[in-house]
Parts: sequence; C-alpha cells; structure tokens
Amino acid sequence: MSTSIVFYDIPSTLPNCCWSPNLWKSRYALNFKGIPYTTVWLEYPEIEEKCKEIGASPTRNKPDGRPHYTLPMIHDLATGAVISDSAKIAAYLDATYPDKPMLMPAGTAGLHRAFEDAAHALISPIYPYGLPAAHKNLNPVSAEYFRRTREVAWGKTLEDLTPKGDEDAVEWKKLKDGFGKLDEWIRVNGPESPYFMGDTPCYADLWTAAYVMWIRLVLPGKWEEVKSWHEGRWAKLLKGLEEYETVL
Amino acid sequence: MSTSIVFYDIPSTLPNCCWSPNLWKSRYALNFKGIPYTTVWLEYPEIEEKCKEIGASPTRNKPDGRPHYTLPMIHDLATGAVISDSAKIAAYLDATYPDKPMLMPAGTAGLHRAFEDAAHALISPIYPYGLPAAHKNLNPVSAEYFRRTREVAWGKTLEDLTPKGDEDAVEWKKLKDGFGKLDEWIRVNGPESPYFMGDTPCYADLWTAAYVMWIRLVLPGKWEEVKSWHEGRWAKLLKGLEEYETVL
Repeated sequence: MSTSIVFYDIPSTLPNCCWSPNLWKSRYALNFKGIPYTTVWLEYPEIEEKCKEIGASPTRNKPDGRPHYTLPMIHDLATGAVISDSAKIAAYLDATYPDKPMLMPAGTAGLHRAFEDAAHALISPIYPYGLPAAHKNLNPVSAEYFRRTREVAWGKTLEDLTPKGDEDAVEWKKLKDGFGKLDEWIRVNGPESPYFMGDTPCYADLWTAAYVMWIRLVLPGKWEEVKSWHEGRWAKLLKGLEEYETVL
Repeated sequence: MSTSIVFYDIPSTLPNCCWSPNLWKSRYALNFKGIPYTTVWLEYPEIEEKCKEIGASPTRNKPDGRPHYTLPMIHDLATGAVISDSAKIAAYLDATYPDKPMLMPAGTAGLHRAFEDAAHALISPIYPYGLPAAHKNLNPVSAEYFRRTREVAWGKTLEDLTPKGDEDAVEWKKLKDGFGKLDEWIRVNGPESPYFMGDTPCYADLWTAAYVMWIRLVLPGKWEEVKSWHEGRWAKLLKGLEEYETVL
C-alpha cells in the first residue's frame, strides 16, 4: 500500500510536535493499524479553511451556533473519504482496513463507545491542568487562538483554570481515582493483564495512552507522580505502546 | 450435565416470582449459558443465615460495618464454588463453562465492567421509582425488611422516595436520557443492531434487560411509555431475549 492517508495534526514546540490527546488517539490508531500516512500540520486558525476545502463535516457547533471544524481529521486518498473526530476515524480505519490489526475487535465497537463515555467522565479533571500547560507549548498563532477560545469556553483565564491549594488537592485526587477505576477495569482480565482486552492492545488502550502521553508531554512534573500510580500501570502502558508513538 | 447449580433468588407475589434486577441479571445469564439449575427462594431475612451456612462471601459492608450478604448467589455443586454478586457470577460461569455460549466474548470482560459502571450511573434514576413499586410485590416478611433497610439507606420513606411533580418530570427525563445513551452505544454497531455487540446478545444486553424487565414487572403503567422509547428498542430487547426468561 502506498502512503494514501493524509493526517491533519496541530503542531507544538515539543520535540515530536504532536501534543493533543485527541490527536494522539488517531495517531496511535494509524500507527497501530500499520497504515502509512503523512502528516500535514495546521495551526489552529488554519483548520476551518482546510476542512472546508477538502469537504470535511463539522464535528459540532460553536457556542454561537456556527459549525465547528476540528482535528483530528484524515483524508484517505485511496477512497476519497474525509473523516473527522477520533472515534469516527477509529471506526473508519477498522471498517476500511479490516485486514490490518483491529482497533476494536469483532463486536466491541459499542462497548468501546461505552468505555469512552465512561472513561472521559472519569479523567476529565485532567483538563484544568492540561489545557494551561499545553498552551505554553503552542506556536504563537495557535497559542493566541487557544487562549481566546478556551477562556470563553471555561469562563476564566488559563492562569485561573489551573487548580490551586485545596482545589488542587481535591481535583488531583479525582483524577487519580478516575485512573484508578480504569486500572480496575483492566484488572478484571486478571491481575497481570496489561490491557483492557487482556494481552493485546485495543482502541481503549490507545485512547487512554493518549491522555497519559499528554501528561507526560505537557505536565512533566506531574508525570513523575503519575508514573508511580497503580503499580506503574500508566508508565508501563506507554512503554508497551512505544512502537506506535512514531510521528510520520 | 446434571442439574448442578443451585440459584438463590428472592420471591415475590408476581406470577413468575423473580422480580429483582440483580437477580434477573444472573437468571438471564444462567439461561443464556444453558446451564441447568434449580432455584431456592429465600425471603430477605433468610439470606444471611443461608449465605453463612454454605460459605458465601459478603458482597459489601452494612452501614454499621458488619458484613452484608446479598443475592444473587449460586452454589455450583459440580465444583463446590459459592459465588455472590451478579458480575462475579457472570465471570464465573464464563470461566467455568467456556464450552457454553459466552456471556462476555473473548477479551471483553474489562470492557463489560466499564459498561456496567457507566450504564448503572445512567439508569440509576430508576431506583426511586422501582424500589417503592417493588416493595408492593413482596411477601410480608420481605416487605418489612425491605422497607426498613431501604428507608435507612435513602433517608426517607418509600412513599416519599417516589418522585412527584416537577421532580418526577426531571428524574423521569434523566432515566429516558440514560436509556438513550445506551441506545446510542448499541447503534454504534449499525442502525439495525439489536444488541451491544451486534447480532448476538452478550452480558451487557442481559444486564440492561434485567432493568427493563424490572420496569415491566413492577411499573406496568410506566412500561407502557418505556415500550415506545428509542423506536421500541427496549420492548424488542425483551422480546429478543424471551427464550432466556424461563424461571427454573
């Protein structure tokens, strides 16, 4: 197969450029499937125009009701398909390339969606930590856009968003407990199970690793602590998926 | 295989006797596996003594810290195992009888646990409706126990527990939205998909059906409405699983 997929990502000043958890979900997915692709890097203000140009669908509406175009997005030149949204990209890759390793093995797409909804609620305390930290690693044109849009969405400055003092203790504990629940789900397969479906990674693992990667990349101080959570579960997860970290 | 499993259930005055969602989870599971079993009916005040007698583990602690013994419980005379808790019973049946249809197909036990945690949170608005209604169908000795313990747990009388007026509208909408999310998860497999894993029922379907069955049995007026939710999804679910409703 030739390099037929174009993957649109948002750059940063970090060494490997890719930084966003939603983008990591799709990059991990592409690498896991073993489908060759090339990355096109778009700064935030460039996303909407490119999405419209290649015929992407908006993924949701902006607060003012206008269509909102977001990355990740792939353009599969072999089929002409343009897909936005990490969950839809994963489903598309499995449906279109079933001869490659399955992200969501037979019949598990619905259970994966349940997992995503539940896991996202559990680890959502990460955002007030991750967003301000991510902002520091963006190029100026994206940093301006990111600050402006996130400050409207959250109703506070990025500086005020980061939990401090007692709120920090409470919110950080919530995050740890959230990851603790994910750890429990993995352990259902047995005490030594490394992944949500046992010995082989599935999309739920890549999804989770995308957030762990975010912590490692933009919150290096916190990462030192997270590495020791749940018997080193999350450091081992990234290690186990290291071969899918490549930024093509 | 002989009738080697004893299944402990709580009786009611309803025609088929079995009424509790947690008990239906395990009864559906036994019937789905096709494992012959006999039911021993225990009124609430009889549960603890029987559990201790056959060596069951408590499933949790009571508010005062003492061990709490609950049904469902199975005693597998073929292996000597005594298992309490519907999730543990399902896992045991799959592990011990892998030649029978799998409740949680290969690798999906962890994703099933994620499903259960998420789905339980979504449909928990059912309890303030279902508990008072269930109480009306219990035999006197269980009804007294049920009222006493539930009123302590919820901090109000069963009569006050049922949402009324504005609260009813809000809570009933929450329940419908919760089932709506489950409907979304099923639809991930395709618009015609009847089950969480596609064309074949899995434990997530039996788990959900157990709550739908509870509505049908103890809230017949509400059931008339629920039947029409989500294009008749829940009526069709019970119909599809009808062969596993047998009370042996």
